[in-house]
Amino acid sequence: MASVSLHLSSRLHVTPPRFSSLRRPRLAPIKALSVPSTALTQDDLKKLAAIKAVEYVSSGMVLGLGTGSTAAFVVAEIGSLLSSGKLTGIVGVPTSKRTFEQAQSLGIPLSTLDEHPRLDLAIDGADEVDPNLDLVKGRGGALLREKIVEAASDKFVVVVDDTKLVTGLGGSGLAMPVEVVQFCWKYNLTRLQELFKDEGVDAKLRLDADGKPYVTDNSNYIVDLYFKTPIKDAGAAGKEISALEGVVDHGLFLDMTSAVIIAGKDGVSVKSK
Amino acid sequence: MASVSLHLSSRLHVTPPRFSSLRRPRLAPIKALSVPSTALTQDDLKKLAAIKAVEYVSSGMVLGLGTGSTAAFVVAEIGSLLSSGKLTGIVGVPTSKRTFEQAQSLGIPLSTLDEHPRLDLAIDGADEVDPNLDLVKGRGGALLREKIVEAASDKFVVVVDDTKLVTGLGGSGLAMPVEVVQFCWKYNLTRLQELFKDEGVDAKLRLDADGKPYVTDNSNYIVDLYFKTPIKDAGAAGKEISALEGVVDHGLFLDMTSAVIIAGKDGVSVKSK
Repeated sequence: MASVSLHLSSRLHVTPPRFSSLRRPRLAPIKALSVPSTALTQDDLKKLAAIKAVEYVSSGMVLGLGTGSTAAFVVAEIGSLLSSGKLTGIVGVPTSKRTFEQAQSLGIPLSTLDEHPRLDLAIDGADEVDPNLDLVKGRGGALLREKIVEAASDKFVVVVDDTKLVTGLGGSGLAMPVEVVQFCWKYNLTRLQELFKDEGVDAKLRLDADGKPYVTDNSNYIVDLYFKTPIKDAGAAGKEISALEGVVDHGLFLDMTSAVIIAGKDGVSVKSK
Repeated sequence: MASVSLHLSSRLHVTPPRFSSLRRPRLAPIKALSVPSTALTQDDLKKLAAIKAVEYVSSGMVLGLGTGSTAAFVVAEIGSLLSSGKLTGIVGVPTSKRTFEQAQSLGIPLSTLDEHPRLDLAIDGADEVDPNLDLVKGRGGALLREKIVEAASDKFVVVVDDTKLVTGLGGSGLAMPVEVVQFCWKYNLTRLQELFKDEGVDAKLRLDADGKPYVTDNSNYIVDLYFKTPIKDAGAAGKEISALEGVVDHGLFLDMTSAVIIAGKDGVSVKSK
């Protein structure tokens, strides 16, 4: 695994990530790094990582557009480079209705997997990143569409701030989402709870702001799993979850990541496999 | 595999299927067999098999109620035995909205997997039955709920007329359904087509009577696969289909069947593993 660090003081000497599709990094956006590091909020870090990730984008690419607060910065940056003419001929495939709306409002030409079954690159945030670059995703509720689009991409670049790094998936203690059909959701919640009794898990139906079950873009529910200890074998766990009838997909994104851009107080680093 | 034949001429000497849960067969419904065999329509055959299957039901059981034309005869028979007092204390778990409505109209007490996560017995029809008692199901569109309920049942009895027997799954040339999320259905249709290029397959989006996409009880679409030759390895095929992101479930019901009741022009036979 390669690790490339971009410190604020050495930002003009960034080693390019090992991507065959990576063109020469555009340096203009890096100027955003010149704010004093002590003033960096979590949003600033997300912006820095997003700007770095967009360096992987070349004119003419078909791009998977992720969902969530970090991905929104990526989409905004792509919109900005398109409108300034620094990027041309981009087609975006959004991973949620809200990303569709954001991208549309920025004038990014959009399409679907039906029209473009292979994508050059997808960029998205993540909720957890482990040392193998495996991920937990989907706290924003778009896990299924994200997984479909990102699995169809030649390269998948993940953008996070350093609070998302974990030693083992599930280790943040925050939600690992499982999308289930509405029919007999309680039955599947119980089965999921049972599946991870070794790790210790609280399984909870996700609710919306009104206290009603949260409904995904695909009309399903989400059962959030809160692990007491990290998942022991994420590969096995993914297969066991998928094998439950009525489970549509889950937030474990395994063996999919090409590179992770990590923003921390000391700068932006890139990890790739 | 045991095979028990019940010929019309010897119907009072039927060998009971090897089920621990089978109580003494009630003989009353067998009278239905005394119609001349030359007059038996396909519906008559379905009725005969349904009546035979209901012999597996004992008072006090929690029952999975299937969906489709044969399963409707099963539900009708259970309703009739309940109203005559020959069965008591039955709780039904329906596998579709229309089975729910039929069972409710017959006064069968109903529940869900949420309340009854383990069922004693499920009875349902099938579209194809192979020599291993593996099935294709779901032409009626209820495959996912059927699979969830039937996988949760201690015993699963399948009821068919003998036109449903095939030497290999997919061999009828009729639809093998795959339930997919609406998002990028065309992309998944193409991937399914690609998956079975060795067998040769036509993959088609299922339409309703108005020519619009058919929508399942779970708000998904169905891609019907029409095989040119039977599926070579149904176990591998099931796993490969399930691994496609956006596939919710499929109509291959493997290693689930306890017994198959088959009605033909010469009588009713029972096959069990």
